[in-house]
Parts: sequence; C-alpha cells; structure tokens
Amino acid sequence: TFLRPQIKITKYLLPATDGDTKTMTFLQEVVDILLAYIVESFDRETKVIDFHYPNELLQMNNWELQDEPATLDDILISCRATLKYAIKTAHPRYFNQLSTGLDMVGLAADWLTSTANTNMFTYEVAPVFVLLEYVTLKKMREIIGWPDGRGDGIFSPGGAISNMYAMLLARFKMFPEVKEKGMSSVPRLVAFTSEHSHFSIKKGAAALGIGTESVICIKADQSGKLIPADLERRILEAKQKGFVPFFVSATAGTTVYGAFDPLIAISDICKKYNIWMHVDGAWGGSLLMSRRHRWKLDGVERANSVTWNPHKMMSVPLQCSALLVREEGLMQNCNQMHACYLFQQDKHYDLSYDTGDKALQCGRHVDIFKLWLMWRAKGTIGFEAQIDKCLELSEYLYNKIKDREGYEMVFDGKPQHTNVCFWYLPPGIRYMEDKEERKKHLHKVAPVIKARMMEYGTTMVSYQPQGDKVNFFRMVISNPAATFEDIDFLIEEIERLGQDL
Amino acid sequence: TFLRPQIKITKYLLPATDGDTKTMTFLQEVVDILLAYIVESFDRETKVIDFHYPNELLQMNNWELQDEPATLDDILISCRATLKYAIKTAHPRYFNQLSTGLDMVGLAADWLTSTANTNMFTYEVAPVFVLLEYVTLKKMREIIGWPDGRGDGIFSPGGAISNMYAMLLARFKMFPEVKEKGMSSVPRLVAFTSEHSHFSIKKGAAALGIGTESVICIKADQSGKLIPADLERRILEAKQKGFVPFFVSATAGTTVYGAFDPLIAISDICKKYNIWMHVDGAWGGSLLMSRRHRWKLDGVERANSVTWNPHKMMSVPLQCSALLVREEGLMQNCNQMHACYLFQQDKHYDLSYDTGDKALQCGRHVDIFKLWLMWRAKGTIGFEAQIDKCLELSEYLYNKIKDREGYEMVFDGKPQHTNVCFWYLPPGIRYMEDKEERKKHLHKVAPVIKARMMEYGTTMVSYQPQGDKVNFFRMVISNPAATFEDIDFLIEEIERLGQDL
Repeated sequence: TFLRPQIKITKYLLPATDGDTKTMTFLQEVVDILLAYIVESFDRETKVIDFHYPNELLQMNNWELQDEPATLDDILISCRATLKYAIKTAHPRYFNQLSTGLDMVGLAADWLTSTANTNMFTYEVAPVFVLLEYVTLKKMREIIGWPDGRGDGIFSPGGAISNMYAMLLARFKMFPEVKEKGMSSVPRLVAFTSEHSHFSIKKGAAALGIGTESVICIKADQSGKLIPADLERRILEAKQKGFVPFFVSATAGTTVYGAFDPLIAISDICKKYNIWMHVDGAWGGSLLMSRRHRWKLDGVERANSVTWNPHKMMSVPLQCSALLVREEGLMQNCNQMHACYLFQQDKHYDLSYDTGDKALQCGRHVDIFKLWLMWRAKGTIGFEAQIDKCLELSEYLYNKIKDREGYEMVFDGKPQHTNVCFWYLPPGIRYMEDKEERKKHLHKVAPVIKARMMEYGTTMVSYQPQGDKVNFFRMVISNPAATFEDIDFLIEEIERLGQDL
Repeated sequence: TFLRPQIKITKYLLPATDGDTKTMTFLQEVVDILLAYIVESFDRETKVIDFHYPNELLQMNNWELQDEPATLDDILISCRATLKYAIKTAHPRYFNQLSTGLDMVGLAADWLTSTANTNMFTYEVAPVFVLLEYVTLKKMREIIGWPDGRGDGIFSPGGAISNMYAMLLARFKMFPEVKEKGMSSVPRLVAFTSEHSHFSIKKGAAALGIGTESVICIKADQSGKLIPADLERRILEAKQKGFVPFFVSATAGTTVYGAFDPLIAISDICKKYNIWMHVDGAWGGSLLMSRRHRWKLDGVERANSVTWNPHKMMSVPLQCSALLVREEGLMQNCNQMHACYLFQQDKHYDLSYDTGDKALQCGRHVDIFKLWLMWRAKGTIGFEAQIDKCLELSEYLYNKIKDREGYEMVFDGKPQHTNVCFWYLPPGIRYMEDKEERKKHLHKVAPVIKARMMEYGTTMVSYQPQGDKVNFFRMVISNPAATFEDIDFLIEEIERLGQDL
C-alpha cells in the first residue's frame, strides 16, 4: 500500500494539501475490496452468511471506538471484517426478505449518490435529484393510472413512513383543523385494514395519536384477501357507535401471503362512505410494471394514495419507497410549517421545486437516483421482465411442492405474488395421528431448519406463525439472481436439514 | 469501453453468466467518474455549482424515463450529467447548509454500506451493523454523561424524526394508554420550546395529533437563548388553564443563531414540574466531542432524550442522526407491535439485538457504518480537532467583520457555535437616514448577492429573515475543507457582488 500502515490515515486524505493521489489510492483500495465482495456474493459456492452469535461476533474483532486514530491498515481490516460477517444479500440463494438481490446499476447509482452527498429539501442544494424525483413520481402516477400523471408524492424512508404519511393526509383532508388543534378537536376517528395487513398501519395510528384500538381489523378470506362485506359491516358498526371512519388501507401484496385485496370493491365502499382509500402496495405495487400481472391491482387508480417500494420487487438498493397521492397540494398544506430560514420565499428560481416543506423530515436522503438510473438502464420493459421472472419462479416452486410428499400448503390455490407459504413435515411427524401433538411438533420444525440454514450458510428463507397456524416457511422471490436450480436447491436443502426432525 | 455503446448494459452485468469481468469494468468506469469528481470538488478553481434554472435544466439533458433500455454510454453520460449540475458539497467554499464537506473515510464507508445493501431491523439480516449501532450509541451516551453509557437510542432518518421520537416517548411515558386509545384518552397536552427552535418540533406536534397550537413558544434573549423565567411562567399559565405540560425541547445550537439554551436552568424547571426534557442537539450536540466547547451543553446529562446529528458538525455523509434516550426499554414499549412475522420469538440467537420493533420504520437504512468507520479513522480526538477548527474559523470571521465598515452583526457578542449572522450594507445604503427605507433596501441585498453567488458559482452561503429582522447572512462552518483564506474569500466575494446594490 501507498502509506506505511502505521501512518494516520486521515491526515493524508483530501482536503489535505496534495491529498489527491493518496485519496484516489485509498478509495481505490476500498473499491477493490468491494468489487471482490460483489463477485463473491453472486457465487453459489460462497456462503450466504458466515453466522456467529452476537456475543461471539462482538469478540471476533475489535469493534470498540477509541480516542486515538487508527491506521490505514486497520481501516481496511475493518472494511473486510464488516463484509466477512455481513449477509450476502446479493446471493442467488438469499430469500429471507422482501428486499433481496443487488442490482449493479442501482449500486453504481448509490455510490454516485453518496459522492454527491446532498439532501432533497430544496432545488438549491439538489437541483438534478429534485428534478429526477419530479420526473419519476410523475411516471409512477401515470402507471397507477391517474390522468396525465397528475398528483403529488414523495420518496420517504420506507413503507412504514409512507403509510404513515397516507394516514396523516387522510386525517388532514377530513379535519384540516387537526394540524393546529390536535386530536382533541376532532371526533373519534377509526381506520380499517385487513387482519393480514402490515403492522405499520397500527404503528402509524399509535404515533399519530389515533391509537391502535381505532384500527379495526377486517376479516380476510383463506387466501389472505380482505372481505369487502366485512369491511362495510364494520364501517356501519363504527358509525353507529358515533365514530368517524376516515381511512381504509387496502393491501396490494400482503407481507406473508402476498395477497391482493379486491381494490374495486373496496373503492366502491370508500366512495359510498366518503373514506380515504389508501393502497399499501409496498410489496405488490411493482406488479403495476407488468402487463401480465397488473390486473391484480385493478382499481388502484381509484385510490387516494398508494405506497410503492421499488426497493422490494424492483430490487432497487435500500431504501427506496414512494408515497403517491392523487390530490395536488394536499401534502404541502398538511405538513408545511413555513420555516423562513429554510424555505426563503425571495429566491431567484421557481420555488415550486423546493419540496422540503411537504415532508415530515427536514433533511431527506437522496433515494431517487438509484431508481432513476436503473429505470434508464433497464427501461420499463426490463423491470417488467425481471418481475415476471420472479413470479415464474414462484409458480415453479408452487407447482413443485403442492402435491409433493411431506409438504402442505398454508392456503389453497396459486399464490398471486411470489409468496409461497408452506409447511415441510419431516417423515417422523408426517403420519402422527394426534393432531395437537403433530401441530406442536410442526411448530418447531421451521425454526430449527432456519437455524441450521444459517449455521451452514447455504440459504436463508423466512418463517413465521400466522393466526392459529403454526410456524411455516414463507418463501418470497424478489432476487433477480435466482434461477430454477436455486428453487430446486432450496427444497433439497430443507429436506436435508429437516429430515431428522 | 469494453462493450459497444449500443449494447444493452444490464444483460451483461451480474447476475448474468460470466458477468464478473464486465461488472467489474462497468463499476470501475463509474468509480473513475466519481474519483475525478471528488478531486475536482476540492479544487478552489472549480465552481461550487454550475447553476441553471429548473426549466433550463430540464431541457439540458434527456431526463425522461423510457420503455426501452439505455446503452452503457447513455448510463455513463447520465452519471456525468448528474454530477455536472450537482452542488459540490465537498467544495471548501460551500457554506450553505449545516451539513457540508465530504469525508473520504465516510464516503468509503457509505460505498461499503451500499454494497452490503441490507437493513437494520434484525440481527439476522445485519449482524455487524446492529452491533456497531449498539457500540456507537453506547459511546455517545457515555459522552453525554449517562452512567456507564446506559440507556437506549436509535439512528433515525434525520433530526426532525429524532425529535418526533422524543415527543412520542415523552407522551407515552406520561400516558402509556395513548398508544392504544389515542389522544382522546388523555388531557390536553402542551409542549414548550424556544421561539428560535427548529420547525420540526411543531411538525412533530402536528403529526402526532397534538397540534401546533399546543407547542408554546418561549421567548429567547437577544442572542437566541431560551429565557428560563419565561418557560416557567408559561408552564404555570398552561397548568392554570388545565393543560398538561409534558415536553420541553431545549435547543443546543439553534439553526440560525447557533444559540445554546441554558440546560441546567431548564432541567431544574423540568424536574420541578415533572416534564420530559429533550435536548435538540441536532446541530450543537457534536460540541460534546470537544473538551474546549462542551461546557456549552452543561446539563445535557439531565435530559431524558437528546437528538445529535453526526451528519452536521461531524461531517458524516448524509444521513446520520441519532436519538439518545436515558430510560432503557421505553422505546420498545412505546413503539413495538409484536409483528410475529418480522420478529419471530423462537429464533436461535439473543433476541435483544433485534431492535427493529422499537423503530417507527420497518426497514431502516444502515446509517451507522459511516460514523463508526470515521470514528475509527479519526479517533475521538480527530473529531475534536475538526470541530475545534471550525469554531476557530468562525471566531476568525466574527473578529474580522464585527467592526468592519459596511457590516452589522445580528446579535451582540461572540457566537457560541459556528453561526455568524450579519448584514452586509452596500455603500449606497450604508448612510441612508430613513430607517424604514434602509431596512426595505437591506432586505433585498442578501437575496441578490446569493443569486449572484450561485450564478458565478464561486461560493454559497445561506440567508434568511428572523422575526422583525430583515434578510441577513447566516454563515455556518461545518466543512473541514475550509481555511482562513476561504473566510477571507467569502468576505471579498460578498463585497464584490454587493457593492453596487
């Protein structure tokens, strides 16, 4: 290396005088580490994870912060150690989350974003990124089906915050005085969402002072779709109690089953009772990019707001979540505080591009460039092909296991998203007669297989219970690196690791 | 380049078969663009910004999203164009925001973070980053002065959200039933903060259903510090009205003046009336790292919660904001929703590292590694030296202009932070007798000089009005690249651009 290891690194890097060459050499050394990691991540011979228990990992490296500066060598060692024990989220057999995979153009764009190191609150400090957000949000609204792509929106730090924005807007739309006077000025509000919906709806209600008890959970059918008749019944029931229904959150792609709520029927009910209709498409919204699958979101254009996370099914690097809003100007009115020290009104350019005051955040990370550059590189048809392929893989998995010995599906029928939910029954419990006993055993199977997967580091997939259903695997595919062979591998691995249980 | 420009790029990159070499070549091409940009950014001969009006900029490149994929050439052109029109936030003469500069180790760490592409909600998917967050938060709490660094905390998407967390915790601490039952179950709550505090306190109150009218603004003295006697008076007044004071947000480093509220006096009042004391140290919290300046936050250890943004004064790349909380377990109780599909309770490792359920977010961007690696590289003493230098520069600026002809200081006395607030009076209005006329003219001076700075691209500094004070410059120094010569340049440039006004 270019510096003796014991030399204190930061003194020699820019902005130090004559720091150019040393800086470029240092950054190049880090990039070389990263490039090697990337290539390794895609290699099926590599472990997905080199797992260690927290207490072990704490002792495997010196992670403590010191008063004194470290050497160049120590910094490079820290980078290598951090990657050594990281999850390889790009690995073709990493299926653990709704966000998997690593797109090379997205990564390049994220490196550029870090280098530009600015924030989104005014055109003044992020001219290009502000325009790209404008262009991209408009395109996403066109895809939703709003006329001429009109409306509003924002990229927020994740789907939970996007959903919270939607609830905030719905409340403000109905009772604008809530902004100044708080919840004590409004009647008891109630929100509705399916029992299978994401926990962020309740989390939002708790934060916004609405309260989790005011989120009424609507029954879902066996495949996880909200039952519209139950929604209407519960709305009427709430109204009879004198409560004010203000928000329905339909889910397009539930977290566990990947179910799509029936948006048209829900929108009819929302219209009838004058309730804000939100579609939480954090997971399923990306299917709008697919001509083959977008019918699953029919009716989304009737929504007042839509959450759509390109960091999930479109494999944009984390984080990238959009809230799209049909009504223009509402976000601004709801959230603006007119801080004149941030949003000067006498600047020399068109102030409509200073979008910071419609956000809950002040500084806001630039999440747009990754999505924009990937869209550029793939085109809409490239995203479509990527999404269609993931759905094909999940159909392959479903067909492979639905009648296979030792498997039971958690719900009937072909999954609508890439979620395939199933139990693996090891031979020893396959024919147990006592149903309660069998259930008790089965509950422990997935956690043990998962723990073994992590210890071997061969693959990772999620499991969870749901309602009265004991632990089952939820396989999801959003990883563009996955192939049919990887699906075969997953099944073989589950059987290898679980057959003795 | 390695591919003919017309070749569709994404088909040839990983996970494509044999994509290794092509991927490394592609990423290296992008890195070369970034390295050139970095070196250029630190060059004083380069413009801080190549400014164009929004409509111009929209037409200067093809920013539209297409159905068809782009070529490799187009992707590289897009990267170059994006950087060409970006603000050079690393530039030694970029003073526009509280977050300026670009740290090379921080940048390297951010590139690694992008490459690792994971999220913070469980140990399972971010083992190293979760541990580093644990280690770093503990260190920050030690620096605050809480015994053994005990307590809690989280890295959040910016100071506004950190402040919102604090308000949420304060409300829950006093009325835990608010989580389930909402604001209708609690009496009318009121919060207190100085009239100079950040707008996020009101924004938080609006979002949380408390309402902006329930945020009572306390008078500040001429230098921007909250007046404790006025705080106590307003608390008593609120109590007499039957309201319940639940939250005081003291500011350590106000946005405009850089004032530090008297924390000890405020903590005495909070203790007396049993009110949660929050310290918004988004801007000033980093002075805790400086033995010379940390007295400005004396009493911070008495706070219940502290916001501290390393992305400001410590020059960590955006975003990096911490909320530190004195009481253990409260965040978890306040925010958890027990979503069993995310936070399985039967996993094989110590679940106390699965911190996701204490967050408002579900997925959470990894903001910790930048800070941790920089801390490693500089040591605590390196951060201290960097902070002390910025304060020296601002003292130099203050001394230079306080008696200089054509300048007036906005408040008396030496600034406590790096904020130097001043009017520049062009010769033409320097001796105007009609005070109202003079004020009217003066109000227009800063915006015109600022617009000219941006058009020439030589430097950028912020301005704003405050209360009845017309537009003035707020110079802030957080940029480690700035030198005494850059301060001299700023003054010369203001005079050059403003003398004819």
